[in-house]
Amino acid sequence: MTATQATRKPSILKGFRDYLPEQMILRQEIINRFKAIFELHGFDPLDTPAIEYLEVLTGKAGENEKLMYAFEDQGGRSVGLRYDLTVPLARVVAMHQSEIVLPFKRYHVAPVWRADRPQRGRFREFWQCDADIAGVESMAADAEIVSVLTDCLAAVGLDNSVVHMSHRRLLERIAMAAGIPQEQAAQVYRSVDKLDKIGAEGVRKEMVEGGIEASQATQVLDTISISGSIEDLLVELSRRLQNDANAEGAIAEMTQLFQLLHQMGVPNDKAVLDLTLARGLDYYTGPVFEAKVTEPKVGSVAGGGRYEGLIGSFGSRSISATGVSLGLERIIEVIREHGTMPIPTAVAQVFVPVVDRNLGSAAELTSELRARGLKTDLSLLDGKSLGEQLKYAGRRGIGLAAILGPDEAARGVVALKNLVTGDQIELERAEIVQSIERMLT
Amino acid sequence: MTATQATRKPSILKGFRDYLPEQMILRQEIINRFKAIFELHGFDPLDTPAIEYLEVLTGKAGENEKLMYAFEDQGGRSVGLRYDLTVPLARVVAMHQSEIVLPFKRYHVAPVWRADRPQRGRFREFWQCDADIAGVESMAADAEIVSVLTDCLAAVGLDNSVVHMSHRRLLERIAMAAGIPQEQAAQVYRSVDKLDKIGAEGVRKEMVEGGIEASQATQVLDTISISGSIEDLLVELSRRLQNDANAEGAIAEMTQLFQLLHQMGVPNDKAVLDLTLARGLDYYTGPVFEAKVTEPKVGSVAGGGRYEGLIGSFGSRSISATGVSLGLERIIEVIREHGTMPIPTAVAQVFVPVVDRNLGSAAELTSELRARGLKTDLSLLDGKSLGEQLKYAGRRGIGLAAILGPDEAARGVVALKNLVTGDQIELERAEIVQSIERMLT
Repeated sequence: MTATQATRKPSILKGFRDYLPEQMILRQEIINRFKAIFELHGFDPLDTPAIEYLEVLTGKAGENEKLMYAFEDQGGRSVGLRYDLTVPLARVVAMHQSEIVLPFKRYHVAPVWRADRPQRGRFREFWQCDADIAGVESMAADAEIVSVLTDCLAAVGLDNSVVHMSHRRLLERIAMAAGIPQEQAAQVYRSVDKLDKIGAEGVRKEMVEGGIEASQATQVLDTISISGSIEDLLVELSRRLQNDANAEGAIAEMTQLFQLLHQMGVPNDKAVLDLTLARGLDYYTGPVFEAKVTEPKVGSVAGGGRYEGLIGSFGSRSISATGVSLGLERIIEVIREHGTMPIPTAVAQVFVPVVDRNLGSAAELTSELRARGLKTDLSLLDGKSLGEQLKYAGRRGIGLAAILGPDEAARGVVALKNLVTGDQIELERAEIVQSIERMLT
Repeated sequence: MTATQATRKPSILKGFRDYLPEQMILRQEIINRFKAIFELHGFDPLDTPAIEYLEVLTGKAGENEKLMYAFEDQGGRSVGLRYDLTVPLARVVAMHQSEIVLPFKRYHVAPVWRADRPQRGRFREFWQCDADIAGVESMAADAEIVSVLTDCLAAVGLDNSVVHMSHRRLLERIAMAAGIPQEQAAQVYRSVDKLDKIGAEGVRKEMVEGGIEASQATQVLDTISISGSIEDLLVELSRRLQNDANAEGAIAEMTQLFQLLHQMGVPNDKAVLDLTLARGLDYYTGPVFEAKVTEPKVGSVAGGGRYEGLIGSFGSRSISATGVSLGLERIIEVIREHGTMPIPTAVAQVFVPVVDRNLGSAAELTSELRARGLKTDLSLLDGKSLGEQLKYAGRRGIGLAAILGPDEAARGVVALKNLVTGDQIELERAEIVQSIERMLT
C-alpha cells in the first residue's frame, strides 16, 4: 500500500530543490552576472560530465569524497557524480594536454552533488561557479583569480564582503616554528580553520586534545593573532620565522601577490591578510583565500587557492593551478535577505491580453513587440474576461499590459496598463513599440 | 596492474564528453540564443534536480525509461537520473499546484542521461532545451509552442528546417477506419514512425509481421500518403473518416492550429501537415510535431506535442500540457557542418601583453578596457617575450592585442595588432577604449 501511495504522490528527495520561476529568475540573473565577469576577465567556458569514473574522483579532495554519490552503471563500471568542479578540471587538463592552450583560463558553472546531511542552507545538489587558471606559477594568476572574485561579488552588490588571504605554507611553518612535528600539521589546519566558529580557546583545546602540546598551541595562536597593516604583518612574520627558507618563500609570494592586487586595482580593504585562514581541502599548496560577508555573518561565500599537485596526480607532468569557487546558494541567501541587488519578478516585460476573442489582433501586436526584442507574453486565456487575464499577468509579476480592443483599434490607440499601480494611459498605435521601449529604459 | 594503470591514466566514460572552450563557446552561444527566444515569448525559467525518486521517473515515457541510470543512494532509496525534462515538469506542476500560476509557461535547458549504446551523434549525457505550457486546453498553446520553436531554429540559422505536424488521434482513427483493432494501434505508430528510414514497403512489411492484415496496412499507408495543401488534406481526411466524431475533433483541432499559426506570423512553409508523423513517446494525446532539417538529412532536431494525462498520473487533477524539446547535439552538428551561423572562436576580445615585465602598466590598461565591458585577457606570460605572448593569444583565437610598451607609453599611443592578419596600427592612448569599441562593432 505504501509503495502505491508513494507512486501517486509526487515528491522530491530531501536535500534537493525545484527552482520555480520565482527563485530561478534570480538564480539565472546572478549566474549570468558571474559569467559576464568571468568572460570580462578573459576566462573561457568549459563543461564536463556529471558522471566520472569513480577512480577519477577518489584520493583527491579528502572529506568531500566521503559524501560522493557512487554507484555502478549498466555496464558494471564504478562511477560517481562529481562533488566539485576542481577535480574534473584537473582531469581535463591532464587528459587533453595536446588540445588545450596553457595558460588555461576556464570558468565552469554547474551543479555538484554531495550526500551531506541536509540542513538550512546546505543541500545535496548545489551549484558552484568556478574560475581557475592552470599552467602559471607566477602570483599573477592568483592575483587575477582574486580580482575576478572581487568583481563577481561587486556585480551582485555584496559590498560588505572581504577576501581573506593566507598561504598554506605559512600556517605550516608557524606550526613548525612552534615545534609541532610535520605529521601533526593537519591537526593544526583543521583546528585553526574553526577559529571563527569556536574561538581561540576552542581551537587551543582542540589542538591539545589532538595531541599538540599546550605551549605549542599557544605559540601558534599567538602568531596567527598578530595584527597590523599587511606590510607590517609580513615583516613581523618574517622576523618570527627567520632562517626558514620555506617560510621566506611563502612570505615573498604573499608580498608579491598583494602588490599585484594593488596594480590590478583591487581596493586595499577588499583583500586582506588573515593568518588564521586554513582552508580545509587537502590539495592546496600555496596562497589560499576565502570571501567572507561581514553582515549577515553567513561565513564564507567563496573560497579557493593554489594547488600544485592535483593535475600531476593524474599521471600528467606537474602543472600548477589556482582558482576560486563561488557558492551560489549562500550568495543567494545574502542577496535575498539584504536586498543587495534588485530582485527581478518576471521574465516577460509586457502582457498582451486577447479582447473579445480577437486573437489575431493580439497576436499581431505581440509579433511587433517581440520583433523589437521586447519580452512579450501573449495571453492564452482568450476565453476569459479582460479582468481575469490581467489578474493572471499580475500574479506572474509582469509589470505592463498592452491592451488592443475593438474600441482602441477604432481610435488608433493602444491602452497601456501598469499592473502594479493600476494606472492606464493611451498611446498611438503606430508608436506603441517605441513608447514601451522608452518606458522600460 | 590494470587497475593501477587505469587510476593513473585520466579518462572519461564512453558516451560522455568534455566540452573544451572550442566546443563550449559555440554551445553556450546557441543555448543563450534559445533562452533569449524562450524569454521573448514570455516563458519563465525552471530547474529541477538531476536525481529523482525512481518511482517519479517510471511508468511514464516508455522506451526511454529502459535507458535510465538507476541506483540506490546512501540512504538506500531507489533513485534515478532524469532521462528527459518533461516528466520532471509534470511532477513539478502536480506537486506545486498551490505555488505556480496556470497557465504555466516554463523553459528548461539542462542535461539528461540515458544509458544508450553510444554512436555517432548519440551520447549518454546530452542537453535538451524544452519549452512547455501547462493548463491550457486551447490550440493557442500548441500554436505558441510551434511559434517559439520556429523562432529558435531561425535564431541559429536553420533556415532549411520545417516543422512537421500531425495529431496523435488522426493516425489512430486512420488505423481504426482501416479496421485495425485498438490494441494493435501501437504497432501502427511504431511502424509508421520509421517511414523516413525504411520506406513505405518496409513499414507495410513491419506492420504485417506485427500481426496487421496486408489490406489494412495498405489502406493506412494509402491514407497517410495523400498530398495537397493543408486545407485540401484536412477536407479529404474528413471525407475518409466521416461519421467518426473522434477523428472530426482531431481534424478540427488541426484546422484551428494552422489558422492560429498563420495569425501568429509563422510562415506557411515552416509548419506543414504530415500524416506520417507518429512520435514514439507513449504520453502524447493530441497534436504532435517534429522539426526536420532537409539538408543535411539528420532527421529530427526537435520534437513535441500535447500530453493530457502525464501531470494527472502524479495523482493531481488532470492538467493538459503541450511542449517542445530541442535536441542541442544534433542542432550543433548541423550548425558546424553547414555554417548556418558564425562560429565564435574566443570569449576574450582583446589581449593585453606585458612588455618588459611592466605588469602594472598592462594591468592598468586592462582595467580600463574591462571597465567599458570589453572582454580582456591580461597576459599571464609576463616572463616571456612579446612574440611568445602574442602567439599564445593567437592560439586561443583572440582577435586583437593592445600593446603598451615603454616606447608606446613615451609617445602617448597604444599599438593595436590584428592577430589574424598581423596588421598593426597605433592609436592615441587617451582614446584607445573608444577606438577598440568602434573596431569591434
